[in-house]
Amino acid sequence: MTKLRIAVVGCSGYTGAELLRLLLLHPRVEIVSISAGRAAGKNIADVYPQFRGLLDLDIVEFEAGKVAAEADFAFCALPHAQSARVVAALRQREIKVVDLSADFRLHEQEVYEQWYGTEAEPIHPAPELLSEAVYGLPELHRAAIQGASLVAAPGCYPTSAILALAPLLKVGWIEPLCIIDSKSGVSGAGRNPSLAAHFPEIGEGVRAYKVCGQHRHTPEMEQEMSAIAGADVRVSFTPHLVPMSRGILTCAYARPVGATRSAEDYQRLYEDFYQDEAFVSVLPAGKFPDTAHVRGSNRAHVSISLDERVGQLLAISAIDNLCKGSSGQAIQCMNLMQGWDESLSVSGAASFP
Amino acid sequence: MTKLRIAVVGCSGYTGAELLRLLLLHPRVEIVSISAGRAAGKNIADVYPQFRGLLDLDIVEFEAGKVAAEADFAFCALPHAQSARVVAALRQREIKVVDLSADFRLHEQEVYEQWYGTEAEPIHPAPELLSEAVYGLPELHRAAIQGASLVAAPGCYPTSAILALAPLLKVGWIEPLCIIDSKSGVSGAGRNPSLAAHFPEIGEGVRAYKVCGQHRHTPEMEQEMSAIAGADVRVSFTPHLVPMSRGILTCAYARPVGATRSAEDYQRLYEDFYQDEAFVSVLPAGKFPDTAHVRGSNRAHVSISLDERVGQLLAISAIDNLCKGSSGQAIQCMNLMQGWDESLSVSGAASFP
Amino acid sequence: MTKLRIAVVGCSGYTGAELLRLLLLHPRVEIVSISAGRAAGKNIADVYPQFRGLLDLDIVEFEAGKVAAEADFAFCALPHAQSARVVAALRQREIKVVDLSADFRLHEQEVYEQWYGTEAEPIHPAPELLSEAVYGLPELHRAAIQGASLVAAPGCYPTSAILALAPLLKVGWIEPLCIIDSKSGVSGAGRNPSLAAHFPEIGEGVRAYKVCGQHRHTPEMEQEMSAIAGADVRVSFTPHLVPMSRGILTCAYARPVGATRSAEDYQRLYEDFYQDEAFVSVLPAGKFPDTAHVRGSNRAHVSISLDERVGQLLAISAIDNLCKGSSGQAIQCMNLMQGWDESLSVSGAASFP
Amino acid sequence: MTKLRIAVVGCSGYTGAELLRLLLLHPRVEIVSISAGRAAGKNIADVYPQFRGLLDLDIVEFEAGKVAAEADFAFCALPHAQSARVVAALRQREIKVVDLSADFRLHEQEVYEQWYGTEAEPIHPAPELLSEAVYGLPELHRAAIQGASLVAAPGCYPTSAILALAPLLKVGWIEPLCIIDSKSGVSGAGRNPSLAAHFPEIGEGVRAYKVCGQHRHTPEMEQEMSAIAGADVRVSFTPHLVPMSRGILTCAYARPVGATRSAEDYQRLYEDFYQDEAFVSVLPAGKFPDTAHVRGSNRAHVSISLDERVGQLLAISAIDNLCKGSSGQAIQCMNLMQGWDESLSVSGAASFP
Repeated sequence: MTKLRIAVVGCSGYTGAELLRLLLLHPRVEIVSISAGRAAGKNIADVYPQFRGLLDLDIVEFEAGKVAAEADFAFCALPHAQSARVVAALRQREIKVVDLSADFRLHEQEVYEQWYGTEAEPIHPAPELLSEAVYGLPELHRAAIQGASLVAAPGCYPTSAILALAPLLKVGWIEPLCIIDSKSGVSGAGRNPSLAAHFPEIGEGVRAYKVCGQHRHTPEMEQEMSAIAGADVRVSFTPHLVPMSRGILTCAYARPVGATRSAEDYQRLYEDFYQDEAFVSVLPAGKFPDTAHVRGSNRAHVSISLDERVGQLLAISAIDNLCKGSSGQAIQCMNLMQGWDESLSVSGAASFP
Repeated sequence: MTKLRIAVVGCSGYTGAELLRLLLLHPRVEIVSISAGRAAGKNIADVYPQFRGLLDLDIVEFEAGKVAAEADFAFCALPHAQSARVVAALRQREIKVVDLSADFRLHEQEVYEQWYGTEAEPIHPAPELLSEAVYGLPELHRAAIQGASLVAAPGCYPTSAILALAPLLKVGWIEPLCIIDSKSGVSGAGRNPSLAAHFPEIGEGVRAYKVCGQHRHTPEMEQEMSAIAGADVRVSFTPHLVPMSRGILTCAYARPVGATRSAEDYQRLYEDFYQDEAFVSVLPAGKFPDTAHVRGSNRAHVSISLDERVGQLLAISAIDNLCKGSSGQAIQCMNLMQGWDESLSVSGAASFP
Repeated sequence: MTKLRIAVVGCSGYTGAELLRLLLLHPRVEIVSISAGRAAGKNIADVYPQFRGLLDLDIVEFEAGKVAAEADFAFCALPHAQSARVVAALRQREIKVVDLSADFRLHEQEVYEQWYGTEAEPIHPAPELLSEAVYGLPELHRAAIQGASLVAAPGCYPTSAILALAPLLKVGWIEPLCIIDSKSGVSGAGRNPSLAAHFPEIGEGVRAYKVCGQHRHTPEMEQEMSAIAGADVRVSFTPHLVPMSRGILTCAYARPVGATRSAEDYQRLYEDFYQDEAFVSVLPAGKFPDTAHVRGSNRAHVSISLDERVGQLLAISAIDNLCKGSSGQAIQCMNLMQGWDESLSVSGAASFP
Repeated sequence: MTKLRIAVVGCSGYTGAELLRLLLLHPRVEIVSISAGRAAGKNIADVYPQFRGLLDLDIVEFEAGKVAAEADFAFCALPHAQSARVVAALRQREIKVVDLSADFRLHEQEVYEQWYGTEAEPIHPAPELLSEAVYGLPELHRAAIQGASLVAAPGCYPTSAILALAPLLKVGWIEPLCIIDSKSGVSGAGRNPSLAAHFPEIGEGVRAYKVCGQHRHTPEMEQEMSAIAGADVRVSFTPHLVPMSRGILTCAYARPVGATRSAEDYQRLYEDFYQDEAFVSVLPAGKFPDTAHVRGSNRAHVSISLDERVGQLLAISAIDNLCKGSSGQAIQCMNLMQGWDESLSVSGAASFP
């Protein structure tokens, strides 16, 4: 069996490392090229010691022509804007791409530019690809992903929020304004040292940041939730940093509308919605998701609860931000794009504890 | 200067230890008696090694007569129900008491029994004291505390939630249904080992528990918030366990009502409301509370934000659950009951990092 | 291809859970039976939620006959003494066993009884099997493991200490008294709640325990180190609990004897010793092991350093206590016993960060 | 009572913040001037939010003349070399100084230059002050500190190592080569973000660094230990980073010499040695230090154990690196220099948990 030759562009960040970890477990692929900026020239084991003895590759600088010659498929794990340029160069050469940046997640160029544009770079670097890109959440867009050549892997927070609310949005049982209170591990901040991720600042406390519509994952949530609902949905999003490396726990609050329904009605809705999904488990009533139970895995745990006293719904989800929230889901998408078993290399259980 | 002689009843739990730590710093008191159940007979330094060389007292079994003979003032840091009996015995002997249990926080006996009653003990053990007890949140009830002989120190979650929302509730600028999403350190679970506080289970993840009106701090929040608002207020409360020892961060979500107001209006409201409060700091716009910044201190940090895009308010508070959320606030109440400077022994800054 | 049918006896502890996680990744085995004491009757997903959607088995009480009828191979992950009885019952029925308890690690019955005997149970429960059992450290005993029917998976601390010092012991370049200073994650304490593993006690500090020959892993280290050295080796062993779930870092201190050697001599010794070992990486000079870099993997990272100023050697090793220090190594042994590729299901890199 | 006017030079690092926290609790001092480099111009509450509402001072750039005009006493918490220049300028103006850098800890200029000299700055910036400076470990040099005008506060690792071994060194019961295996919280790395202190890199693992005589605290240990012993003592020092913010646990290994002594002999030696020391507690036999039990306090917990099987001694100490290991001890020294009660503002117990 010929293996699919894979290039990982942007291997020096945490999502890059997680891609390599998972791809090494994949029976049908071969990592042929890894590239990065400042880390170019180093052996991967000097950048990520966990690969010592397992992957003996030198990191190179990205060259589209070289990647196209060596590889059949590329993952791009680069900062936004930079990613769009690399993706464009690879798509020109007909390389299939899963992009892990934000560049192709938003369908509307203006929305992208409003949230991601900077003075230095106000315009999307490759807007012509926006219509081609598919939002890579298999639970919502499986068929489109299967036929896609360019997939935008969803953001970590949006993955957690969308999976939490999708069943309710689909049937229209809630008001279109939702509160998303998410707690993230610190790996979400990336590998560049900063005071905000400096151990003594953050190791033994918890804090919110970029609250009330400041976080760039907001429009992505609204785009996808609105699509599910078939109507405009808005979110008030509060991200937090919690002293752990991996994981996102999202509490999504919504107000019920329409007929009075029981906790059992909501529970059944969720179980039915996700019954064929291999990576999403709806927890039994009375159990709640815990990020420790999905750590290192591509799985999502979801619960739905009704606060009968006051008439509020609470959907909770737990994912690993680097896996189902990023690199694991990216590989799940690749599996779909290749027509393979969706779970190849990402079927494992969390390594708990 | 004669020192006030203090008894700490229930010294073996974490709130007991925190009381001892703070009382040792207090210039006007002397710890004369410490008691506990299973730990009776041991020296405090064998139960809490941090006191070795600082406090050389043996733990005894509680006897009301003995405490009344030796002490002028008692803190009770016992489990609920058990505490009410001890408090009753001490009040009969005219000892002033700050009780850290839930037994005297709720004014209505039926509400207490509905939330705390058990099959074995359906009835409040000392309902005759309910009318005498004052809810010990100085920022709301300072005058009443000054004249009280029995103060019920508030729960940790309610302290954080009430301080977050009090300004808005007071002026009636929000709907009377609030969402309280709180993240707590694990010391809130007490010192008795359990799977829910076992390091490997919770050390590197985050999870919600007792969501949607299952947690007993719910009625306490509603009682106090309704009193501030002068109208029925309901909360949907979601507590979480975060991998840290101390601290509570509360995100309180509310929907504005009435006239359209700007972020500056809300900011000013908060700054005015707390301007004379020594223990509450309203953070400048754009800054958000962090439990690390109040750890070990009796301080609360509060912020107020408006999500203008969607019309939602988010008030955030950070406290140390064992200090402002429990033992520190209890001592703040004692200072008031004694007519002393409110900040004696609890004036310190957080030990950050 | 027929799959090997596996029974996991003692699936409710952390080593049991880790066995299940790894076995689910194994292409040549099938988990047919899982048993435990108090957890019997429950579905595994209710005991370990990470398996929800992945493994749908009910936990049963152990019955040797039933296991022998259903399974070809058993892992025993039970407390010592209890394990020996189960192993004896399975060996009588000719089931191959890897035992993860301490019961068959020590060759000498008297040594076992001296360290593990209790007043209630002073005698080894199955001494007749001691001579049959092979110590399951593949790097030292690969051939014997390949031919074994009963393998005793090594303790976590001994694995780390032996791998750190084996090259030096083999060539006799050090004094036969070594200091072993090991730092362990808390999962090593097992899943039963205790004050010693209660989050608030241990979450934000570090401490030694059972120092100076009190820890039961001491004789196991000495047995194996003496065997390598061909002479009596003694260790002074200091275990620590560090606020993390997984991992052991061992600093092994030894004094050089004989000819003067350079740092390069020691480095070469280590690289040569481990050059054919797939699971042990000797780090380049100037790099030191980090438990985060082996977490969740069956790998060991080892370094050797010479303190030239004072004439001391320091060998450092990092492993995951639940994987290479326990369940991963147990599966590595099974692979050898079955004549398979040694790395089946345990070849993965650490999930770092 | 006139208060001593204090300047804190270098208030933006963690030791600076800890100085401010403790000085705010001090009844006889007043903080009049705080300075720093990049943080100059900011209010302290914007740099360290824990001081909001407690200390309303703007950070200024250091000017020796201004400090001399405003203050009576200065703490310097600056990087080495930079500190020496500031200290020299202040001493010229007859300001008493406690310096927290390494610049005045080593008596021998050559030793300093060998360990701290750089190509850019090979020479000690103020060697003329070396003979005046007193090493600020009160347990060893109390009388000298009382008469000093310039005190060099000891390093955190040396404080822990020296306190652990001083009794044994004093009586000469051990070989003069000791192994120091220390585990530190991450605040020891300072507040400047770096990969080595980036949460995801170190949050859930443990690792050694700068082993075998690479760490600059080595000569400081040897200087002081040799002075106690009255003979050359060498150490092989291994520092570690542990996932916690504060604390150092040191295991000091030594080989006994001379007459055979029992565990009780060693225990008595330690208890006698430290019997008059208010800040050092020798733990009872069978108990071992835990950094959590000294966190936030100026206390040291010390144990001594004999491994009778193999003839090794293990002394363990626990301190808070920022308090007894740095700023707390600096204030203890100031108290001595001023002729005050040594424990003013640093008498508190650890805030455990």
